[in-house]
Amino acid sequence: MISKTPAPPYYTVIFTSIRSEGDNGYSDMSEKMNTLVKNTPGFLGVESARGAQPGEMGITVSYWKDLESIKAWRSNPEHSVARSKGRAEWYSRFKVRIAKVERDY
Amino acid sequence: MISKTPAPPYYTVIFTSIRSEGDNGYSDMSEKMNTLVKNTPGFLGVESARGAQPGEMGITVSYWKDLESIKAWRSNPEHSVARSKGRAEWYSRFKVRIAKVERDY
Repeated sequence: MISKTPAPPYYTVIFTSIRSEGDNGYSDMSEKMNTLVKNTPGFLGVESARGAQPGEMGITVSYWKDLESIKAWRSNPEHSVARSKGRAEWYSRFKVRIAKVERDY
Repeated sequence: MISKTPAPPYYTVIFTSIRSEGDNGYSDMSEKMNTLVKNTPGFLGVESARGAQPGEMGITVSYWKDLESIKAWRSNPEHSVARSKGRAEWYSRFKVRIAKVERDY
């Protein structure tokens, strides 16, 4: 479950979110995106955690070879649809941070 | 609950872990560290999520002004004791990644 990432440097996208109430197709889409991202060039791994109570925070951290891979994943049409639905229906709040991993242990 | 971080650049420590079974003093220490870190110079915020089932992943992401602040927090004697106990008793696996946040939205 902990991603086996290569030696730094590499990139990470930290997605922090609070879910809205109800599923509204979220679980299906989440599974679909998980499969899709794994076949995206430059993808190195993903780690995810969310508390069980409604309103609790979720954190998804994905790892990428470089900024270009992150951009390409953002431009994926199916992922773009998922992001729109996320903004409109699934998340009451979220924040995205893009960072360069300099060190790990 | 989502940290109000300043405009990038700033730094982040991504701590991904799998807990061992039992509490073994973890909850008390966790609360203590949470209070302590908030009074550490350069600390900008922390976000945390963990699934409710045993063996599920936990992710804690803390945000920092610069690498010097992260180093100073690592050198805090009480935090050092907590880290030793973490390695010995609380986590069956963990990984730490230090990254520079370049962009957020």
